[in-house]
Amino acid sequence: MPHIALNSAEPGIRGLLQFRPETARPLSELAEVLLRGPSTLTRGERELIAAYVSSLNQCRYCSSSHSATAAAQLQGGMALVEQVCLDPGTAPVSAKLRALLEIASAVRHGGDAVAAEHITQARAAGATDVEIHDTVLIAAAFCMFNRYVDGLDAVAPEDPAVYAAGAQRVVAHGYLPPSPDPGRQG
Amino acid sequence: MPHIALNSAEPGIRGLLQFRPETARPLSELAEVLLRGPSTLTRGERELIAAYVSSLNQCRYCSSSHSATAAAQLQGGMALVEQVCLDPGTAPVSAKLRALLEIASAVRHGGDAVAAEHITQARAAGATDVEIHDTVLIAAAFCMFNRYVDGLDAVAPEDPAVYAAGAQRVVAHGYLPPSPDPGRQG
Repeated sequence: MPHIALNSAEPGIRGLLQFRPETARPLSELAEVLLRGPSTLTRGERELIAAYVSSLNQCRYCSSSHSATAAAQLQGGMALVEQVCLDPGTAPVSAKLRALLEIASAVRHGGDAVAAEHITQARAAGATDVEIHDTVLIAAAFCMFNRYVDGLDAVAPEDPAVYAAGAQRVVAHGYLPPSPDPGRQG
Repeated sequence: MPHIALNSAEPGIRGLLQFRPETARPLSELAEVLLRGPSTLTRGERELIAAYVSSLNQCRYCSSSHSATAAAQLQGGMALVEQVCLDPGTAPVSAKLRALLEIASAVRHGGDAVAAEHITQARAAGATDVEIHDTVLIAAAFCMFNRYVDGLDAVAPEDPAVYAAGAQRVVAHGYLPPSPDPGRQG
């Protein structure tokens, strides 16, 4: 049961966003820009970074959600996502994505854990400065989202079908709340 | 020197926001809502939570910035901020703020570190559910901002006058970027 009395039965971060729409807006926009906005990293690759960091942080709701959303947008599906979360060093991903996942893991420990060698390695594998920037910010943002969800003890359903359905919703509609029904406006 | 080539000489997060305006917008809005939007916690109290978490995370740029901004908006000034960062248990703050600072410290370790007793104690000291929610999210957000700034090795000036000037700017104008000059619009 969540630590605070929410105003809906929505699980995970969705219940928290509904409880506090003022903070929900920038949080949803951040997820939308980082994970789905224009980028030379695919949506699947960015969701994979989010899933990997959430898995390292042992946040069940976020790792299940973003694993499902990554799987829905990656050729290798859930098998690839699970391999990456287990060991990105041996998972069949590009050298560039592997180097970015290493940066993400360092960020998760703390900003100072990102060493010049991480950056050199990512650049040697073809990563651009914007890709390095976005990887650091995705990893940092999930250190926030994971703490937000678990710090308030938000509900994390056990049924994988819940996360698969959520992934389909995100793939189709994104992270921004649906526009209000114009018929209900004043 | 930052890990990536920025497009300005702005220090800390300001250089990162200028480099990537697409992510700057939701990040700035999140800081504005959380630290300055309508709340039963004062702006000084919320900046103090941000400064405390940034200090625990040893992020020099963020802890200096938010310590200065907290000091500018709290009766006790920088002496109080320093006492809180050293030991919130003995610093002269209200029982409610002390309980919220303990929640923030737990969030910094990880969401699962927030125990039911933290919440019970905060409620007993008069904290509302929204105040508990906002404390968890401020602490989580600074686990992001700190990692973002240090993960990209953003410049952290040594001169305290830089942070004092930044604090005055935030107190007067907030965290949102200035509106574009209407004369320059198409």
